[in-house]
Amino acid sequence: MVIKIRPEKREEYKKLHASIWPEVLDLLKKANIGNISIYYKDDTLFEYLEYSGADFEADISILMANPVYKKWLKVCDACQQPLDTRKKGEWWAKMEEVFHCD
Amino acid sequence: MVIKIRPEKREEYKKLHASIWPEVLDLLKKANIGNISIYYKDDTLFEYLEYSGADFEADISILMANPVYKKWLKVCDACQQPLDTRKKGEWWAKMEEVFHCD
Repeated sequence: MVIKIRPEKREEYKKLHASIWPEVLDLLKKANIGNISIYYKDDTLFEYLEYSGADFEADISILMANPVYKKWLKVCDACQQPLDTRKKGEWWAKMEEVFHCD
Repeated sequence: MVIKIRPEKREEYKKLHASIWPEVLDLLKKANIGNISIYYKDDTLFEYLEYSGADFEADISILMANPVYKKWLKVCDACQQPLDTRKKGEWWAKMEEVFHCD
């Protein structure tokens, strides 16, 4: 997934992730989301994650409905500027996988 | 890592990776590089990979010296346009990891 970062919020975003709220980590784990990495270059953020559950939609619904996670997203979203080319309903824009090998 | 793709070479690049040379896969494995993904959006490519060896520099040197791998890189590189903001010596620009959790 890809998104832009507001340049004036760059350091705030990095600090947020350097000391991520423990509840958020627990919620992600419960949603079967792991091996999460976020990378930065030229005011662009790239996120990679792996889902290991059986029902992604259900896990995401529970995660998104959680008040702590909503609060976390609110502070993160304020640092981000979504791409104009994102699809309807997206915040982070999903990318097309053109290659994968284990 | 991040790089731009030449728009006129987009389909060629996707085709190359849809039928990657088996020797290239073997060489990557021997270099202890795995879980490789390449993602595309808006003529930008992101590559994620994991290194599981003990001496990255040594493994990369062996890989880069291999004639088949050199040939593979040559056809791939012709499809790519490196970022002006990349560091000296880079082709794909390395990104800064701002977050990781297992």
